[in-house]
Amino acid sequence: MRAAVLRDGAIVVRDDAPDPVPAMGQVLVEVKACGICGSDLHFVDHGAEMLELGDQMHGMPDLGEMGPSKTDLGRDVYMGHEFSAEILEVGPDTDTLAPGTIVTSIPLLIGPTGFETIVYCNDIAAGYGERMLLSAPLLLEVPNGLDPLHAALTEPMAVGLHAVNRSGIAQGDGALVLGCGPVGLAVIASLAQRGISPIVASDFSPARRAIATAMGAHVVSDAAHESAFDVWAREGKEQPLVVFEAIGVPGILNLVMRDAPRNARVLVVGVCMGHDDVVPFFGISKELEVRFALAYDPMEFGASLRSLAEGEIDVTPMITGQVALDGVPQAFADLGDPEQHCKILVVPGSQ
Amino acid sequence: MRAAVLRDGAIVVRDDAPDPVPAMGQVLVEVKACGICGSDLHFVDHGAEMLELGDQMHGMPDLGEMGPSKTDLGRDVYMGHEFSAEILEVGPDTDTLAPGTIVTSIPLLIGPTGFETIVYCNDIAAGYGERMLLSAPLLLEVPNGLDPLHAALTEPMAVGLHAVNRSGIAQGDGALVLGCGPVGLAVIASLAQRGISPIVASDFSPARRAIATAMGAHVVSDAAHESAFDVWAREGKEQPLVVFEAIGVPGILNLVMRDAPRNARVLVVGVCMGHDDVVPFFGISKELEVRFALAYDPMEFGASLRSLAEGEIDVTPMITGQVALDGVPQAFADLGDPEQHCKILVVPGSQ
Repeated sequence: MRAAVLRDGAIVVRDDAPDPVPAMGQVLVEVKACGICGSDLHFVDHGAEMLELGDQMHGMPDLGEMGPSKTDLGRDVYMGHEFSAEILEVGPDTDTLAPGTIVTSIPLLIGPTGFETIVYCNDIAAGYGERMLLSAPLLLEVPNGLDPLHAALTEPMAVGLHAVNRSGIAQGDGALVLGCGPVGLAVIASLAQRGISPIVASDFSPARRAIATAMGAHVVSDAAHESAFDVWAREGKEQPLVVFEAIGVPGILNLVMRDAPRNARVLVVGVCMGHDDVVPFFGISKELEVRFALAYDPMEFGASLRSLAEGEIDVTPMITGQVALDGVPQAFADLGDPEQHCKILVVPGSQ
Repeated sequence: MRAAVLRDGAIVVRDDAPDPVPAMGQVLVEVKACGICGSDLHFVDHGAEMLELGDQMHGMPDLGEMGPSKTDLGRDVYMGHEFSAEILEVGPDTDTLAPGTIVTSIPLLIGPTGFETIVYCNDIAAGYGERMLLSAPLLLEVPNGLDPLHAALTEPMAVGLHAVNRSGIAQGDGALVLGCGPVGLAVIASLAQRGISPIVASDFSPARRAIATAMGAHVVSDAAHESAFDVWAREGKEQPLVVFEAIGVPGILNLVMRDAPRNARVLVVGVCMGHDDVVPFFGISKELEVRFALAYDPMEFGASLRSLAEGEIDVTPMITGQVALDGVPQAFADLGDPEQHCKILVVPGSQ
């Protein structure tokens, strides 16, 4: 089958990817749409470093949960973990939804040896391909006739929901969202859904700020012209503040620590690779709290799908492009320009 | 009067410090004992940097609460904020405790322009001197005949209590205390008082580890021979973990982030000056939470005094030395050796 894979540091489209065959408990699906995630761009640029850091790190469960640590960059790597799909074929002795059903799933595959992540794997097909395997117990039917292109965004929107849940933000608190990429926008949508006010968002890009407003930000600020914290000081009415750091480049965390108001909580949801430099004295003097967030749990994933299907969150403003498999390499390049693109969907069935 | 002050980067004893005169709402006290705090050692070495960082930082209330930002290092600086004292004289129109009462207080002075901190000030006498001013509304009588030398440790023990309160540690959680200086020991005492188990403590110094055991640590570990996190993995029975970082030197925070178990909470109570290098990916991958703690509130200060007076916390093992004012410069030097000393008390009335 056809699939876009990472090979020697670049995205290439191959015609000869092995056809996946569903085992017991699995289904074969046809990918309807798959969003290109910022972490995929990160992995293309920083894959070796991510693997090395994963190896250095202690304290992680040895469950293959962080798939990258088993990835061999010398072989082709499948990517694409924000997908919706149609069931084609059900594995042996498997009782599940009928072929033809539109589904989504958290990107985990239950195999004979346990859970494997459907991300950065050498042997498990993922969303940038014609077909892939999913696990029957993890399937969620896409309800209400929700457009499969929108259902593909269940996953990134769950990342925003999880960050908001993990932040512990409460009614009466305000939020400052730094960075209006897909993750920041997902955070904004989730904050708006639960009625947090004000939501102040900051980005350099006018296009991204416009999307932030469409997703529910009350005030948007041009990072080039004014410190987001000055905007917050004006808009925030001395409320407790939760800062969502959704930029993820070195230097931002320390800037937040330097400029955040006393007792602010900082939710780090941007994935900053490499080393970062901070001045702990800032955090100490202001008794800041820094919580790191990653991914979501299955309940949050289901809640995210429900929000889309019920129309409580509309992802239309975030979707700025759609490509066939042949367009994936160019789409990775195009995503470098925030004025041009926010979320590009790969639609393997299109031309 | 006599006082030890910071002058040109060194501690010197002067005989000609101005005699403080109590204004309305203030009392003149004779210092009975004053502990030498690690932050005073820090300030001698890093004072200019602390002042500069204070100036860079935004988001702090402009209340003079962080006294250092107003300090002129070109003039003598008074220090000493862990004190007990005897009331000598009550200011005009002030209704308070009688002369002769042994008291302590949070190190704030209420003056005509508001609160001033009794720490690193050019014009407000502090604990390394014969006499000082305190504010009548903030006085706490030292009860139960508690030794004034022990009462002087109300302040550092309140730092430990505050860190433990701020950590949100709950019954069933375990604690790992990295660094058994006075702050780490105060944390251990507070954890032991509330029945947290196990309390695992780590330090390079055998003497400090012995004090940690005396203060309530269940397991002590030699940082030179084994990672504290390996000890925790053995002792912790898969409980949720709160790590108290009470070392405060660059590199420790990242080591904690690299080695802590998933979902651990990290309470930073060590004051690390300068810049520090971290790998955010560690924090993200394990969804760590980093809370910075500073000082305590007045309720915690009162609770700390009560714990000492009721015998629930015994600070005897921490007190390793006692000097007169003339001994303060040497005591600052001696505190560099953890084998020799932990907490040295300045007793201005001794010879």
